[in-house]
Amino acid sequence: MERTSLPQGVALVSLRVITDERGSVLQMLRCDAADFEQFGECYFSEVLPGRIKAWKRHRTQTQNLAVPVGRIRMVLFDDRAASATAGQVVVLELGRPDAYRRLTIPPGLWYGFGCLGNVPALIANCADAPHQPDESDTRPADDNRMPHEWCAQL
Amino acid sequence: MERTSLPQGVALVSLRVITDERGSVLQMLRCDAADFEQFGECYFSEVLPGRIKAWKRHRTQTQNLAVPVGRIRMVLFDDRAASATAGQVVVLELGRPDAYRRLTIPPGLWYGFGCLGNVPALIANCADAPHQPDESDTRPADDNRMPHEWCAQL
Repeated sequence: MERTSLPQGVALVSLRVITDERGSVLQMLRCDAADFEQFGECYFSEVLPGRIKAWKRHRTQTQNLAVPVGRIRMVLFDDRAASATAGQVVVLELGRPDAYRRLTIPPGLWYGFGCLGNVPALIANCADAPHQPDESDTRPADDNRMPHEWCAQL
Repeated sequence: MERTSLPQGVALVSLRVITDERGSVLQMLRCDAADFEQFGECYFSEVLPGRIKAWKRHRTQTQNLAVPVGRIRMVLFDDRAASATAGQVVVLELGRPDAYRRLTIPPGLWYGFGCLGNVPALIANCADAPHQPDESDTRPADDNRMPHEWCAQL
């Protein structure tokens, strides 16, 4: 982990890649891992080259994300008034070979992501609860309350 | 589901793809699904173009597989003496857009898969137990006890 400061409640852990000439095996989440909480839903979000999916904030659901295909810029914004890291903006890259990691995003934190490079990226999410449509808030990528300029930086 | 006959204990269910001009969202497994059993481990197996990963048989673990990226030929071989479908060989394709499905493979069934097409495929597995190295059996792809000729058909 190259970053020493992450928003309160966020975790970033290296994941094992078992290389094989036929194609690698990539670990994601085990029920007997020390940091495993519970399984709610596994799904994938594809992001096409140059596209952005932002912003989203869950009220109760915790996200556990990894990027097995392609490359993602992930931005986290902590506007939680009671947080020890309130106001913090963190920009991460996720993807192989150097950043195949599991990112845990707790409820209450804003996040968004964009595809870097010229191949579609795939984000896998093992969330701790199944999707509920009324459990999250969204803002447009260019919302002026959000301290990140996607267009200038992606 | 275009196939009427699958080996005993095997299930194949269509999964929802929510299309989006930025990149699709692909469902995989929810804990509140009628057919959900339990979560053990989520991992990914990449298969490079023209490569084959075969054969494997788990003793206790159930596999729940889907192919969000690329295209896979999956072969199942039922040599369980007590099975109603003993001797059956089933060849399936998995992948988008027409075959984005969750394949459940029970313990005791042999399976193998190969990458079709010219892009690496990604298989996601939400197994019902975490990986244990001594819980599965393997045979080489060209094992002459297995009634499928990979080289001729992939």
